[in-house]
Parts: sequence; structure tokens; C-alpha cells
Amino acid sequence: MNNFIFYSPTEFVFGKDTEKRTAEMIAKYHGTKVLIVYGGGSVVRSGLLDKIKRILDGAHIAHVELGGIQPNPTDPKVYEGIGLGRREQIDFLLPVGGGSVIDTAKAIACGIPYEGDFWDFYSGKATPQKAVRLGVVLTIPAAGSEGSGNSVITKTDGLRKLSLRTPEVLRPAFAIMNPELTFTLPAWQTACGVTDMMAHIMERYFTNTEEVEVPDRMCEGTLKAIIAEARKVMRHPHDYGARANLMWAGTIAHNGTCGVGCEEDWASHFMEHEISAVYNVTHGAGLAVIFPAWLTYMAGHHAKKAAQFACRVWDVPESDDKKAMALEGVERMKAFFREIGMPTSFRELGIEHPDIGLLVKKLHENKGERVGNYLPLDSRATREIYEIANR
Amino acid sequence: MNNFIFYSPTEFVFGKDTEKRTAEMIAKYHGTKVLIVYGGGSVVRSGLLDKIKRILDGAHIAHVELGGIQPNPTDPKVYEGIGLGRREQIDFLLPVGGGSVIDTAKAIACGIPYEGDFWDFYSGKATPQKAVRLGVVLTIPAAGSEGSGNSVITKTDGLRKLSLRTPEVLRPAFAIMNPELTFTLPAWQTACGVTDMMAHIMERYFTNTEEVEVPDRMCEGTLKAIIAEARKVMRHPHDYGARANLMWAGTIAHNGTCGVGCEEDWASHFMEHEISAVYNVTHGAGLAVIFPAWLTYMAGHHAKKAAQFACRVWDVPESDDKKAMALEGVERMKAFFREIGMPTSFRELGIEHPDIGLLVKKLHENKGERVGNYLPLDSRATREIYEIANR
Repeated sequence: MNNFIFYSPTEFVFGKDTEKRTAEMIAKYHGTKVLIVYGGGSVVRSGLLDKIKRILDGAHIAHVELGGIQPNPTDPKVYEGIGLGRREQIDFLLPVGGGSVIDTAKAIACGIPYEGDFWDFYSGKATPQKAVRLGVVLTIPAAGSEGSGNSVITKTDGLRKLSLRTPEVLRPAFAIMNPELTFTLPAWQTACGVTDMMAHIMERYFTNTEEVEVPDRMCEGTLKAIIAEARKVMRHPHDYGARANLMWAGTIAHNGTCGVGCEEDWASHFMEHEISAVYNVTHGAGLAVIFPAWLTYMAGHHAKKAAQFACRVWDVPESDDKKAMALEGVERMKAFFREIGMPTSFRELGIEHPDIGLLVKKLHENKGERVGNYLPLDSRATREIYEIANR
Repeated sequence: MNNFIFYSPTEFVFGKDTEKRTAEMIAKYHGTKVLIVYGGGSVVRSGLLDKIKRILDGAHIAHVELGGIQPNPTDPKVYEGIGLGRREQIDFLLPVGGGSVIDTAKAIACGIPYEGDFWDFYSGKATPQKAVRLGVVLTIPAAGSEGSGNSVITKTDGLRKLSLRTPEVLRPAFAIMNPELTFTLPAWQTACGVTDMMAHIMERYFTNTEEVEVPDRMCEGTLKAIIAEARKVMRHPHDYGARANLMWAGTIAHNGTCGVGCEEDWASHFMEHEISAVYNVTHGAGLAVIFPAWLTYMAGHHAKKAAQFACRVWDVPESDDKKAMALEGVERMKAFFREIGMPTSFRELGIEHPDIGLLVKKLHENKGERVGNYLPLDSRATREIYEIANR
């Protein structure tokens, strides 16, 4: 096991009716003037946005708002939020939504007190030293952004997805998580979220770090639970227990609980980021295509952990043929993705003729000659994986 | 799943050589004058105490010390620490040790700024509103006190073990966890620690709360990992990886990670507290006696979760006879405890003729007519469990 720091200071307030505590939580963390950030559509239609505003009004907490954040969020909304936040002198950010909304709020949070361009933080040119505090009302369990210090924004200029990882400054002070708010999530978005949280666990699980039995068992157990609960939710969208288990799984998949002390991989995420930046597909759906392809490649080149994954997560019987075990695991994972309505190939993703050359070129331009850690991949390997996904 | 709050703000600094960061971490959390609390014996002999003091000296952090904390810690040392801390105007507490040392430091931490008797907090007469900040250097993985807001102190007057649970005020700001510091732990203490952390998970796992697949899988996975790693450590006390997995398991067993959203039980802990208060046995050893007895009783009266436990943790084959499954699980757990050198009966614990009448009387005096939640136990039931432990 490698040395690590586990630091998850976010206060998670989980369960029925917890959104009623929004004003109380903002006050606890010293917010007095709030910028509410949201996407639009469902948060407005469901009445949640109005409800939150009434709750803030009732507690005499001033608020302004920024709506219209899109999936795969881009920089114009970040600049708009920074301007609005400065003009209105807000001291707290309240994203109400899923990962795109929260990630945008994080970019605004560190952009407001910074004199330069917020992109400096995402390009690695600068590290955020301070940020406006934020708390979250989560409505889509998927990205895990409610419990992490990370943020991903797409730079409109060049369509590049850039990630920021600053565990301390950008962790939400609190996250309000009411599983009932996810009852009306469409099946497609639910399944994309399931895939995303599974991928967050697998990026940590596929590691060469030895002696990681506790993190391994936690990853495997959480994955098994996600698979079981996802099946229930696809049949019964209003199943509170299943929605609750999935919602919490999405958080622990990405707040550091799973995979402590492991070198992480992230090749599949980086490969997917190129697909969603170029073709604007939903991140989770792109992962359902890339992860099985990546794992198929690993079965042939570095099967060890892939075989353990097949056995412990997908109940593939132990055998001496680790490659065969790993491949059977891939088949079961693909069958599961299909079962919940996810694509498992470019074609099913709606991309008939992917420009694999472009994807490979952008990937290695952005991420360097070799991508990932479980088995560092050069451009020949990543091309092969994109091609497996195109079969 | 029940509503819950998960809040684990402690910064865990885990791995080799991490004790070298003690001064840096104290400074980060604004400590300038430190009261070091420790047990004695091994922390002094190993040179760790001197090392820590040199590190503080090197960073010009002033310090005083309080040694001699005993297992099952009692109030005289708490009063001594409160007096010393006030006289020396310390602003930070640094327990170096295991649960007894940390729990004593917590009692001192909330006692220093309080005008009344610190027992007020443990008797429920008052709730601590503030406390001196503390950080931990952990040397015994077992109690999980490094990541919790809890503390257990034995009241000398009447030999009563009293618990305090204040998640917010008494959580350590940081916990430094170097698995190498546990290499020299005697086999007996290692095994007691293993039993204690397993019990912390099981107290949460045995619940009637429905739809808890994520917490169930995390509990089961962590237990399986503990069992595997404990076997390695008993054979090879200097196995870094196994020590590391056990050390982290001890923390997540008790910081809220395992068992979110579940009603918890704690009957076994309360029953054990009476044994260790009266006979001054090590808490973990007492648990190795009581938990199998409790579970044997449950096999006959409320087998459902006990059968799942047998299957998923101890690999007992599924069958329609849940009671038989549960009992086979108990046998495997007892065999494991014996394998690591733990007692599984009063006799093996060195108590030939336990005064069961006294234990039952004190238990219900302290904890009320019914104890526990998985199956609330009256005095007839607890007597029967103590008697099973005496077979």
C-alpha cells in the first residue's frame, strides 16, 4: 500500500427531506449572500429551484442565480458566473444539480478571488490558494463532484476537457443528498450515472500497487452493490432504497473512500474525455464504450487484476487461464451495461465513423506520450483500444 | 436506508515515516503549546516519544507531557491532565498511542475549557460545546478513536465505563498513521485490536434497517480483508502491507464509513464493558468472548442477518436453514479468533467463575431495561448470552 492522505471534510446530509436544511447549512458555513447555480430543465420543472429559493428567503439569506449550465460544461458560463459573483459580492455558491453544475460552480468559486484567468488553474499554471465557499444540493448521482475537490470544464477554444484537482480548497463544505430528488431522473441519465460511478471505482481498482486488500474489497463490494441496485432502479425508478444506495455509492466512488493507497489509472477517463469533447456525448455513455474496450486490451496484456475483477465482482469462476477469466468478466460487464440501456460500441453511441486518428492525436497532445498507470499506453495501444470500441 | 450525516473531517496522514510530519500538522491546525499524552512502556522504549519531542523542538513548538495512561483508562489521569493543561495554558493535545490514550486526551480536551466536572459530558448532563483541538499519532490500530468523536472512560467510583459521543467537537484534526509503528505490537495486543475493529463493524452491520446493500457490502468486504490480513500479521509481524491494511481497517471500522444509514446495535459492546470494568480484561479479548455468544443467541432468535453474515463473510454455503447457516458462521468466527490467539469463553479469558448476576445487574442499571437494537435484550436474554459465553 502506498502512503496516502485521506481527507474528506465535506458534511454529507443524506436522506429524505434534507433539502429543507439548505438554509441552515449555508448559515452554519457562514454564507450570507448566495449564488445559486443550476442547469435548467428538470430543476425548474420539478419546483426544486423555487423551493430552495423560498427556503433561503425564509432564512433571510440573499441570493442571485445563474442557470443554463449544460452537460460537458464550457467556459462562457464560468466567466459569466465570475462576473456576476463579483458584481453581487456573493460569499457562498450553491450548485443545485449534478456534476456539470457543481464543476462549473467550483470554477467560479476559485475564479472570483483570482486576478488572472481561471484557466490558469486548469492548465496547471497556477494553484488555487483560496475560493468562495460552496455547498451542494445534489440531484444526479454520478460524477461524485459533491465530495471531491475536482472539476472538469471544456475549453471552447479547441474543445479540450481540462481537469483541476485541488482536494482542499474546492471541497464542498456540505452536500445535501435526498434520493427522492432522483426519482424523476430519466433511465438514460440514471444509467449514465451508474456507469460513471463504476468507472470512478475501476480507475482506482486497476492498480499495480501491492497489498491493497482493504481498498480492493471496498471497491469490489461497492461495485457489486451498484450492479444490484442499478438493476432495481431500472425496473422501479421510485425505489427509494435502491436510489439511496446508488446515490451514496456515487459519492464514495470518488471522495477517496475507494482506492486509498493505490496508484490510480485514469486512462479510460482520458480516452473518454476526447470522445465527449469531440462528439459531445454524455460522459457516462462514453465510458460504457471505452471501459470494456480498455479491459479487453488488458486481458491480453496485463490480465492479473482483470481476472480478480472478473471473479470477485462478476462471479466468474477461478481458473488458471487469467486471460479467459478476464475476457469473461468483460462480457458480463458489457451485458450489464446493455441491460441498463448503455451503448458498448461507437456505433451504439451514435458515432458511425469515429475519427480515431483525431482522438488519438488529441489524447496524446493533451496527456503526453503515455496514458494511464496500470499499463501505460502509447499511441499504438490507445489506437487499438479505440478500434476495439469500434468493432 | 435511514437518513444519516457522514462527517469525517479528520485529515488522515497515512504511511511510512509520516510521524516526521507531526510538527507541520500541529502548526497547520494552529497549535503552539502542546500537551503530549501517552501510556508509557513501548512508546518510551521504542524511542518514539523522544523522536516526537525532538521534532516539536525542531519546529519551536512548546510541549509538556502526561504519561502513564493505562488500558481501560480511569478519571484520575483525566483530572491530572485538565489541571496540567490549564496551568500550562496548552492549546493543543497530542495523544501518542492507542484508544486509551486518545480517549483520555479527548476527556482532557473537553474538560479544560469547562467549568463543571468533565463527567457531566459522559453522564449526559451536559454536551461539550468546545474543546482544545487535538491531533493523534496512532500506535495501536483497534479502537478507531483516531477518526471518531467518541471516548470511553472508566469511572473509578463504582467501576462504570461511560461513553461520550460528540462527533463534531472531539474529532481529531489529524491522525498520523505509520504502520511501521505497529511492527512491535505483541501478538496478543494485535489480536485484541483485530477483534475490536471487527466488532465495530459488526455492531453496525447487525441491523434491521432494510435496503442497505452499499453499507452491507462495505462491512462484509472490510471484514474479509481484516480476516485475511490478520492471518498474515500473526505469522509475519513485520509485514508492512498487512499491518497497513489492518491499520486503515481499524479507522474505517469506526469513523462512519462502514454502516452508514443503518440503525446500530452495540449490545455486545455494552455487555463487554461490564466484563472489562469488573475484571479489567482487555476490551478486544472480552469482545472475542461476548460476540460469538451474542451471535449464537441471535442464530436462535433472529437469524436473518446472521445467516447473510455467515455466507458473505465466512463463505458458509447458502441454505434454507438460516439458523444452521448462522451457527456455522459462529463456529468459523470462533475458530478464527482461536487461530489468532483470542479467548472465546470466560474460562479462556481467565475468569473461572464469572459473577453473571453482577454483570447483568450492572448492565441494565447502566443501560436500561433493554439493550441493543437488532434484537433488544432484556435481563433474561443478556443472562443467557453471558451463560453461553461461560460454557
